Amino acid sequence: MSIKDYIECAQKDVVATLQQHFDQPLDTEQTIKSATEYGLFNGGKRLRPFLVYATGEMLGAKKQDLDILAGAIECIHSYSLVHDDLPAMDDDDLRRGRPTCHIEFGEAHAILAGDALQTLAFELIASHEFTCSSQTQIKMIAQLAKASGLEGMVGGQSLDIAATDKAVTVQELERIHKLKTGALINCAITLGALCSENADKQTLENLSIFGYAIGLAFQVHDDILDVEGDTIILGKPQGSDIAANKATYPALLGMLGAKEKAQNLIQQAHEALAKIDADTTHLASLANYLIERDH
Amino acid sequence: MSIKDYIECAQKDVVATLQQHFDQPLDTEQTIKSATEYGLFNGGKRLRPFLVYATGEMLGAKKQDLDILAGAIECIHSYSLVHDDLPAMDDDDLRRGRPTCHIEFGEAHAILAGDALQTLAFELIASHEFTCSSQTQIKMIAQLAKASGLEGMVGGQSLDIAATDKAVTVQELERIHKLKTGALINCAITLGALCSENADKQTLENLSIFGYAIGLAFQVHDDILDVEGDTIILGKPQGSDIAANKATYPALLGMLGAKEKAQNLIQQAHEALAKIDADTTHLASLANYLIERDH
Repeated sequence: MSIKDYIECAQKDVVATLQQHFDQPLDTEQTIKSATEYGLFNGGKRLRPFLVYATGEMLGAKKQDLDILAGAIECIHSYSLVHDDLPAMDDDDLRRGRPTCHIEFGEAHAILAGDALQTLAFELIASHEFTCSSQTQIKMIAQLAKASGLEGMVGGQSLDIAATDKAVTVQELERIHKLKTGALINCAITLGALCSENADKQTLENLSIFGYAIGLAFQVHDDILDVEGDTIILGKPQGSDIAANKATYPALLGMLGAKEKAQNLIQQAHEALAKIDADTTHLASLANYLIERDH
Repeated sequence: MSIKDYIECAQKDVVATLQQHFDQPLDTEQTIKSATEYGLFNGGKRLRPFLVYATGEMLGAKKQDLDILAGAIECIHSYSLVHDDLPAMDDDDLRRGRPTCHIEFGEAHAILAGDALQTLAFELIASHEFTCSSQTQIKMIAQLAKASGLEGMVGGQSLDIAATDKAVTVQELERIHKLKTGALINCAITLGALCSENADKQTLENLSIFGYAIGLAFQVHDDILDVEGDTIILGKPQGSDIAANKATYPALLGMLGAKEKAQNLIQQAHEALAKIDADTTHLASLANYLIERDH
């Protein structure tokens, strides 16, 4: 199987897990249920779920536990996209070629759908009977919360807002991405590793170096695609970062510099993996894929 | 001490717990930190924290554990207020006599502050070393998530939106409130009880009957205050529910009928308490207070 096939497998597994939740009879209101599902089943690449599965399976975690963790992390990611797209935030009408949640359901329901998706992430983990210990289960919830909140994703969003229309340095841009996207990408890897209960401190540290490197490379490559990509393939207007006056790596480093940076980061990622005593093939393939993809 | 003094104590304790969290060095952006604190330290009555403390202490739970649960539940409540006040939702400029979060910090930061407050609720519970078991800790997280999400508060918000400008029956209005405010009020009581690890199934059931009764009575009395209350004391414009075309108990039952309903609910609450083998004095006083308060 190619890495693309593996990513597709992870995508199918996480969607099936989440679909199972929504197939249960839920005592709620129909529109908000639909808006929540719309925000979640969005045709996304499901990169974070793949990282949960790849890391967890590499270290011997149980598939049924990883399903839940992958689902939870995707709920957090999806909620952030729904709220990010709101008129008061990025004001995007289109995501992956579809109308955004507030265009389809109105702003009030998009706000609530994002809220419900965040809650669902924690509900999924807290309601599942894990094969790992209760202590590990609690630790995973704490990690997910930390990665999502003020010191993670939300803090990064706010740094991003503060940086719009301002000149930022490469270091400042790096801090934005480290919090905005890096924290959750890293958390996906950490959750997979914690769940296995087979990762020592050194392994967790190397996985963290790997996680931040690929997270940043992902972002650098996204910025490159925003300049060189195709609107149809991207599913969003090419050039939208520049139009929104957002700091990007090509703008700061030049296109050549940005591509070199992405390459260097992937190199760092491979070096971290080499220090891990396990079969890191899938994680290594993913690292390469991240800076080769066209959307 | 009067019930008002007890409520004030709970208020002080929960604010101190939450303040302690924000007094730590947090690796985040300053504006979002301020917006989050603004949304949380809002001069609220802290009814839900009081319920956590009163129920937990009645059943022998540890104070340091209840502090965290009270803080977490108040984070969820506060996040819901911040998002509720947004222009796309209730569009309120004033809450408890202060500008609402989006008036003070702008819409983007208010959305993010609400998001961060929700995350913080789960982070607080998952990061604390409880004296109760890990299994109980996980169960409390699951309960809080369930009460907050599609089948709880967010579902109720959506029912509320669907009912605006429409004729609803008393039964429909009851379902809205049961989810929108009842679920979290009940959860406060349940968390206090679970944390003690001293509540049998029968006690939990009676507490649940008590919780839904006082939750609904609270709402009925709020509707009454919206008609009869004073804008200055309420901290929001008197008559704002009627202006927003929201269904209210006085509108459906008449003022006399609404007052009778509130009385009956408090009666039910007392009957449920009478069946519990513990000193329910504080919970009983609170029930009476809820329909006597002027704001």
